[in-house]
Amino acid sequence: MKNGILKFKRKPKIISSYSVVGHMEKSGPLGELFDEYSNDDKFGKNSWEKAESEMQKRAFSGALNKSGLIDTEIDVLLAGDLLNQCVGSNYGLSCFDVGYLGLYGACSTCSEGLLIGASLYSGGVVDSCAVVTSSHYCSSERQFRFPLEYGGQRTPTAQWTTTGAGAFILKDEGNVEISEGMIGKIIDKGISDINNMGAAMAPAAIDTIKRYFLESEHSPEFFDLIITGDLGYEGSEILKDLLLKDGIDIRNNHIDCGLMLFDRKAQDVHAGGSGCGCSAIVMASDIIPRLASGELKSVLFLGTGALMSPVSLFQGGTIPAIAHLVRLSSLNSHN
Amino acid sequence: MKNGILKFKRKPKIISSYSVVGHMEKSGPLGELFDEYSNDDKFGKNSWEKAESEMQKRAFSGALNKSGLIDTEIDVLLAGDLLNQCVGSNYGLSCFDVGYLGLYGACSTCSEGLLIGASLYSGGVVDSCAVVTSSHYCSSERQFRFPLEYGGQRTPTAQWTTTGAGAFILKDEGNVEISEGMIGKIIDKGISDINNMGAAMAPAAIDTIKRYFLESEHSPEFFDLIITGDLGYEGSEILKDLLLKDGIDIRNNHIDCGLMLFDRKAQDVHAGGSGCGCSAIVMASDIIPRLASGELKSVLFLGTGALMSPVSLFQGGTIPAIAHLVRLSSLNSHN
Repeated sequence: MKNGILKFKRKPKIISSYSVVGHMEKSGPLGELFDEYSNDDKFGKNSWEKAESEMQKRAFSGALNKSGLIDTEIDVLLAGDLLNQCVGSNYGLSCFDVGYLGLYGACSTCSEGLLIGASLYSGGVVDSCAVVTSSHYCSSERQFRFPLEYGGQRTPTAQWTTTGAGAFILKDEGNVEISEGMIGKIIDKGISDINNMGAAMAPAAIDTIKRYFLESEHSPEFFDLIITGDLGYEGSEILKDLLLKDGIDIRNNHIDCGLMLFDRKAQDVHAGGSGCGCSAIVMASDIIPRLASGELKSVLFLGTGALMSPVSLFQGGTIPAIAHLVRLSSLNSHN
Repeated sequence: MKNGILKFKRKPKIISSYSVVGHMEKSGPLGELFDEYSNDDKFGKNSWEKAESEMQKRAFSGALNKSGLIDTEIDVLLAGDLLNQCVGSNYGLSCFDVGYLGLYGACSTCSEGLLIGASLYSGGVVDSCAVVTSSHYCSSERQFRFPLEYGGQRTPTAQWTTTGAGAFILKDEGNVEISEGMIGKIIDKGISDINNMGAAMAPAAIDTIKRYFLESEHSPEFFDLIITGDLGYEGSEILKDLLLKDGIDIRNNHIDCGLMLFDRKAQDVHAGGSGCGCSAIVMASDIIPRLASGELKSVLFLGTGALMSPVSLFQGGTIPAIAHLVRLSSLNSHN
């Protein structure tokens, strides 16, 4: 390859996926689809960070149960989250007896994990792997913005960090195949507004999509869906507008996990959902099952991530962003 | 594989490595070996975090120059650091035109990157890759412990975070081969003293070493060196003692990057060096060249990482740790 499309010789199947969510996500348009939820967003723990770890633990356990495997049958666990030093994953998954590779890709972590997992599987380095990622509204708000108790006013372009964890098991049998991938590049267009991540991440998604279609044998209309992670309303509009100027029309098949997860008006989430958990739970509970059933045939999933920290912004930095692409295909022809 | 040794079908070579260090590292026992240093630990920037990014940028540029390649000839960049949201890497490497996969493995990041890079190369998913990692004493102290200005007293078991960045280019030709690998598991033995990371990380190194020798055709004495990342004095003693009780004697060939980097007494670094940059610069500037020349034939490198955050410890958590193993072999028979 040459900065281009990753062609997997041996293509892994997503044999199971599992989602754990909080009460906001359960009350949203996709609420019925999630595997597990808690009305108590602390998930029985005494801190938001421990709650996030608990979600990861439950998500991986749930995905294992669905697949009929136990932890020692998984060759490697790929995981990450938004918390400093990725402690959501490190603590949540420490009880399992599996090799562990920690990732940091902000909200692109789900796609980064699927990409690396598929690459390891393709090369025969592993025969199975799991991808787990999470975010929590309360742990994120206090780390990136304000303590909840402060009651800060949110701007119209702000997104709502998802409380949720998603897990995926990749192995040899099943109807949902990871066919291709493309590694994102760091793109920084000078956006510095922490309350407008969609605008910061859209250029990264544009870069990856343009590179993909330059090389792919397919045009955008081939895909049932082109799904971005969590650009939200602002970022999605920028994405479609700017791609159209470059002759790539995705207006008919683009959707965004951040816009699917919540009812923006009724749930007062402003520009939509975000966070590592956002695309993970939407993919795990909505998109993967629809690919498994054959309702969807071919999907491009672009996880998008904003790679700043509060410190980097305080020091005058702008927001670097990234978007990794994963192509998913249904092998179910009965629909 | 089955939670075991990763066997690389196509074995990548480390075609170049490069190190950038601060004044403490330059003044230490390995000082003459480093490629580049700055007496100004801010590297011309106005914050410690920006200095760390600058080191990463210089390290990757330096490794590219040595290899005769340019950024667009590298298929993927694997990088990470200790800073919240890994901003050392995200900002330092954003100017390069390369696909980017962010990692979080704390001080094990160098070994994690080499492991994933070798796996991607082995499977033919990429034909080249780069691994870059860094740490900075000043950005780490204020993030994990105290602001420097506070002048906090250091305990005897405390380690000194390395100011340095190391970069490695993996491709097809050269004398230093990555032959095997083993992915670490998260091991948490209940240590909660942030000033004794060696004790927290030693059990992870023990777990990986025991699993490796259970499966490997070789015994410990086969290897010229068994190098741990940065267990320091405390952790190294624990490692050797506990392995000996299990019948694995590494007393004659074990060294630790954290103990090699500084003169513990003259430089007042207490238990030795630490940080993502520690093993990266020691491997890049001492071990890899000695493998390339044939002075060393076979080396096991175990990057060790402590996966806590200040918040997780404030909330009563203990320190989960991990150790990834990389086996390096010299193809130079002229020595």
